[in-house]
Amino acid sequence: MDGIRALTFDVFGTVVDWRGTIVREMSALGLSRGIEADWAAFADAWRAGYQPAMDLVRRGDLPWTKLDALHRRILDELAPRFGLNGLSEAELDAVNRVWHRLDPWSDAVEGLTRLKRRYAIATLSNGNVSLLSNMAKRAGLPWDVILSAELAGCYKPDPRVYRKAADLLGLEPHEVVMVAAHPSDLRAAAAVGFRTAFVPRPLEHGPGSTAEPAAAGEFDWTAADFVELADRLGA
Amino acid sequence: MDGIRALTFDVFGTVVDWRGTIVREMSALGLSRGIEADWAAFADAWRAGYQPAMDLVRRGDLPWTKLDALHRRILDELAPRFGLNGLSEAELDAVNRVWHRLDPWSDAVEGLTRLKRRYAIATLSNGNVSLLSNMAKRAGLPWDVILSAELAGCYKPDPRVYRKAADLLGLEPHEVVMVAAHPSDLRAAAAVGFRTAFVPRPLEHGPGSTAEPAAAGEFDWTAADFVELADRLGA
Repeated sequence: MDGIRALTFDVFGTVVDWRGTIVREMSALGLSRGIEADWAAFADAWRAGYQPAMDLVRRGDLPWTKLDALHRRILDELAPRFGLNGLSEAELDAVNRVWHRLDPWSDAVEGLTRLKRRYAIATLSNGNVSLLSNMAKRAGLPWDVILSAELAGCYKPDPRVYRKAADLLGLEPHEVVMVAAHPSDLRAAAAVGFRTAFVPRPLEHGPGSTAEPAAAGEFDWTAADFVELADRLGA
Repeated sequence: MDGIRALTFDVFGTVVDWRGTIVREMSALGLSRGIEADWAAFADAWRAGYQPAMDLVRRGDLPWTKLDALHRRILDELAPRFGLNGLSEAELDAVNRVWHRLDPWSDAVEGLTRLKRRYAIATLSNGNVSLLSNMAKRAGLPWDVILSAELAGCYKPDPRVYRKAADLLGLEPHEVVMVAAHPSDLRAAAAVGFRTAFVPRPLEHGPGSTAEPAAAGEFDWTAADFVELADRLGA
């Protein structure tokens, strides 16, 4: 742990259970509004639109656009397929902001609280700053600082996102550990000099799904959850 | 309070007592190193270099430069006058980082904790992000999000700093209250549409100094401290 000063965390899937939360919220909305749909398929379809929407920004087909607005574009495309056409603009906006209300995995708050005692802890997500801060306030996620792709004006895995995070933290990349459930995120962070901690989240894509595979020894640390990560990092 | 969603706070002088902290720290350093100097004059001289140093960036004579680096330029100029020439590079760096360790006014943590229950609370300081987050972690300042001139790439009172803050919060300017002990900061925030709360800090410049004057009714709220501000804002 020598020389480690801060931990930056991927958020969707790593800290919070986007799929479970969306299924729960939409099931409740469906019941109250009499809309029947496969809400797990809805959650998966919404998330499936995530990388293609960011690709529009990455390729320059769209100027910089906050993730809230990308989520809304995808939602508007999906709405007819899932019986959401009858919702008002205010209701659609409230649905879109479910990403601000995602519930953490059960170990997240306890693990972060321990890690915060020894290290600076920060988000490093493609979610916009207000999404991440609203989420943190609601869920009690005790971040020291909210960092986001929004502050670099480009999306992960662009190396500028990780470099900007280290710069804002006032640290060298090797003093920072990127924590994520997604090997691609960790590889991009490692490429700019971050250290890496892999926390697989086998339930990210729902019951019966599996964690993304990683080669043994590829990352500096691997932990089953954030409490185990705190053990590994001496916090 | 209708429609208010977030409060943004000036930090140096408004939340923390920069002068008192610097005098305390430097007096202790002076004793341990056998350096005799007028540490109140040192604190005042360091702060007196603040606006001129930012002016170099504002005029374009310097590219964007973090406040940590501006503080260091001023410190290097002052060092011979105050007997600090014998300090090592590591010691000078530690002195420079006193701005990361400033103590809050005695009402700050209690008032912010109350205000946080009802509103999003954020810094909006010319201090860089790492300065503000290190300060918050040490002092227990419960910010929801750390916002800084650094995220706009220019210094207050440039209107882009306030606009960037509202944009990152996902809010319209009229949904945000700027809180400061300095009328000039509040005027600049009001010019872009923020609401304003004036919290005079008569001791900012030391015993016997007075708060900056403000015309009656110029700002939306005035409070003697953050606890009274929480009362005024129904938090």
